[in-house]
Amino acid sequence: LRTKLPAVGTTIFTRMSALANEHGAVNLGQGFPDFECDPALPGMVADAMRAGHNQYPAMAGVPLLREAISSKVSALYGRSYDAASEVTVTAGATQAITTAILCCVHPGDEVIVIEPAYDAYAPAIELAGGVMVPVSMQVGEDGYSIPWDKVAAAAGPRTRLIVINSPHNPTGSVLRRADIDALAAIVRGTDILLLSDEVYEHMVYDGAVHESVCRYPELAERAFVVSSFGKTYHVTGWKIGYVAAPAALMAEFRKVHQYYVFTVNTPMQHGIAGYMSDPAPYLELAAFYQRKRDLFRDGLQGSRFSLLPADGTYFQCVRYDAISAIPEADFAEWLTREVKVAAIPVSAFYSQATESGIVRFCFAKKDETLRLALERLAKL
Amino acid sequence: LRTKLPAVGTTIFTRMSALANEHGAVNLGQGFPDFECDPALPGMVADAMRAGHNQYPAMAGVPLLREAISSKVSALYGRSYDAASEVTVTAGATQAITTAILCCVHPGDEVIVIEPAYDAYAPAIELAGGVMVPVSMQVGEDGYSIPWDKVAAAAGPRTRLIVINSPHNPTGSVLRRADIDALAAIVRGTDILLLSDEVYEHMVYDGAVHESVCRYPELAERAFVVSSFGKTYHVTGWKIGYVAAPAALMAEFRKVHQYYVFTVNTPMQHGIAGYMSDPAPYLELAAFYQRKRDLFRDGLQGSRFSLLPADGTYFQCVRYDAISAIPEADFAEWLTREVKVAAIPVSAFYSQATESGIVRFCFAKKDETLRLALERLAKL
Ligand SMILES: CSCCC(=O)C(=O)O
Ligand SMILES: CSCCC(=O)C(=O)O
Repeated sequence: LRTKLPAVGTTIFTRMSALANEHGAVNLGQGFPDFECDPALPGMVADAMRAGHNQYPAMAGVPLLREAISSKVSALYGRSYDAASEVTVTAGATQAITTAILCCVHPGDEVIVIEPAYDAYAPAIELAGGVMVPVSMQVGEDGYSIPWDKVAAAAGPRTRLIVINSPHNPTGSVLRRADIDALAAIVRGTDILLLSDEVYEHMVYDGAVHESVCRYPELAERAFVVSSFGKTYHVTGWKIGYVAAPAALMAEFRKVHQYYVFTVNTPMQHGIAGYMSDPAPYLELAAFYQRKRDLFRDGLQGSRFSLLPADGTYFQCVRYDAISAIPEADFAEWLTREVKVAAIPVSAFYSQATESGIVRFCFAKKDETLRLALERLAKL
Repeated sequence: LRTKLPAVGTTIFTRMSALANEHGAVNLGQGFPDFECDPALPGMVADAMRAGHNQYPAMAGVPLLREAISSKVSALYGRSYDAASEVTVTAGATQAITTAILCCVHPGDEVIVIEPAYDAYAPAIELAGGVMVPVSMQVGEDGYSIPWDKVAAAAGPRTRLIVINSPHNPTGSVLRRADIDALAAIVRGTDILLLSDEVYEHMVYDGAVHESVCRYPELAERAFVVSSFGKTYHVTGWKIGYVAAPAALMAEFRKVHQYYVFTVNTPMQHGIAGYMSDPAPYLELAAFYQRKRDLFRDGLQGSRFSLLPADGTYFQCVRYDAISAIPEADFAEWLTREVKVAAIPVSAFYSQATESGIVRFCFAKKDETLRLALERLAKL
């Protein structure tokens, strides 16, 4: 059987979680909380099931949920998406991302991806017959940043799509106004589309604003914007997210969506729609995680790791060069086996071998989990 | 924006459901029950959420559920699929079907589809860059049957995959042993793969057995076999199904799956795993729906519709030529608007314009719903 995806193996997240379990390591690898969601949320899903919301919903999603999403985006970012034609509920953000890529990338089209990057972009581009054009972030004392001149140089007549991601997995960096301006200058006057992965939108720290693409009409008019309820509501296993896009783009998205998953779990949609009527959970999320970030960073002060900035997401990247000079993948495995704390090597987020001596920890964990990890890491 | 799927519009199911709502018609169009599932099932999902099963499950699905699936398939059809490497839980059967097609069809590969056919096959083949080769079923006094000589003639060196579906949507026909033998003769000695859509596996009537591809090693060894919990447990909106396939095929399936949806709703998987420990609900399903089929068929005796056989699925096809000679799409719309009973035109299941004067009714409805529809249809 000739493979469609020769480069694909098991995801790094699955492999590191398995290794963590095998060695009894504290799992700061794969990004998921080890604490419970607000019990009100499952309660609302249970109510929806009892109320009989168990058959196919509308293809694009339960209207109440699409309206709740539209209101939220409008309140936070000032752009109105029409709930009927510009919002679609998806079976997780990964499905939204892959569907967006499949619906607009034709064989031979180029897609610019800024690396390190979430590992689902490349296989989706490959499945679509597209050509991924990677541009590496630069990493210095101030952390990771995007070399927009290189992005501009990579863009050309065959560029169909640029994938951006802020807050950024794995680096924890966030786009600033200057980044938005640079991106706008690149796409202005072209027909390049944008895929903006904003699944960590509610996790931006130190009072900064989330520079959602939705805020900028000249970007939003050409963008698929993706978010995730799993990340926002501490239920990564519910696999529910959404995409917002102008109607013309959304029409293409839905052509693929309706034949790929057709539609998304009805009772979960009703439950989340009800839960969204209170904005507090997402408005308070940044403070909630900023405290965990600070706990984790404080605990690593004085350790042999050096901390990179962590301006958003629930990830903290660290340099380990004072400890070892081995490749990131080996270091992450060694850390898991010997120190019993799992991390993700940042090298796993590049399409070409790239070593920068940096690994990623996830701090979406109970304080006691973080403390146990810090204790172990302090021994190094 | 150049479309990837020029032929795709809104699905016939969505359109007819909308029309039914608009005209207050009894909706016997889209296939979904209008009655509730067993309340024990949502109860088990609610328990799973409360027990904290809310984060990412294993990529291929919750192990307990995969084992329950493997045991069921083994008990019913005598084939052992390894739960670890040969079963994957999917976000509905449609996702399983599309992923199976995307993972093995390369650009230019031919895929044989027997029409009328479920409308998700063709767009998936098109997305994969494949070429659909349709073969039409023949329809006579005894109902629909597959002209295997034409399938054999359509098969050649470029054939990568044959899609089969039994019990069959929309015709309600089922594969018999002679069909299995004919199919086996076609694929023997070739490297043609099979995609066997068996989502109505538990709805075969009059004491016949479901001729699952799983029963026949020379077919099963080259087959993706797909089923649906939504259909079996009266929860079409839960969007959860599975695929079983030999490990080598499953490895390719999972490469696409893990980057398309990554994984499937955790608490639903736990709830269904628990619910499957009692086989009664699926063992009793055929009797449950046979009674509804008989109620519906009896009610149409003496009407101006003539009934085709309904050997499986929850669909009843009827000829309406004694009533009108208009095309099926127009007749289904007229029936919805004027008679206030929605049906699906069988012509919607063909890639090329095909009129046979037949529409499909769904009888997965409360008895009172069926009686109301019958009352209206009797007036014709
Ligand atoms: C989809 S599994 C991985 C979760 C995640 O987004 C991450 O750890 O980066
Ligand atoms: C996926 S919506 C349609 C449900 C169905 O399978 C049918 O009505 O044929």
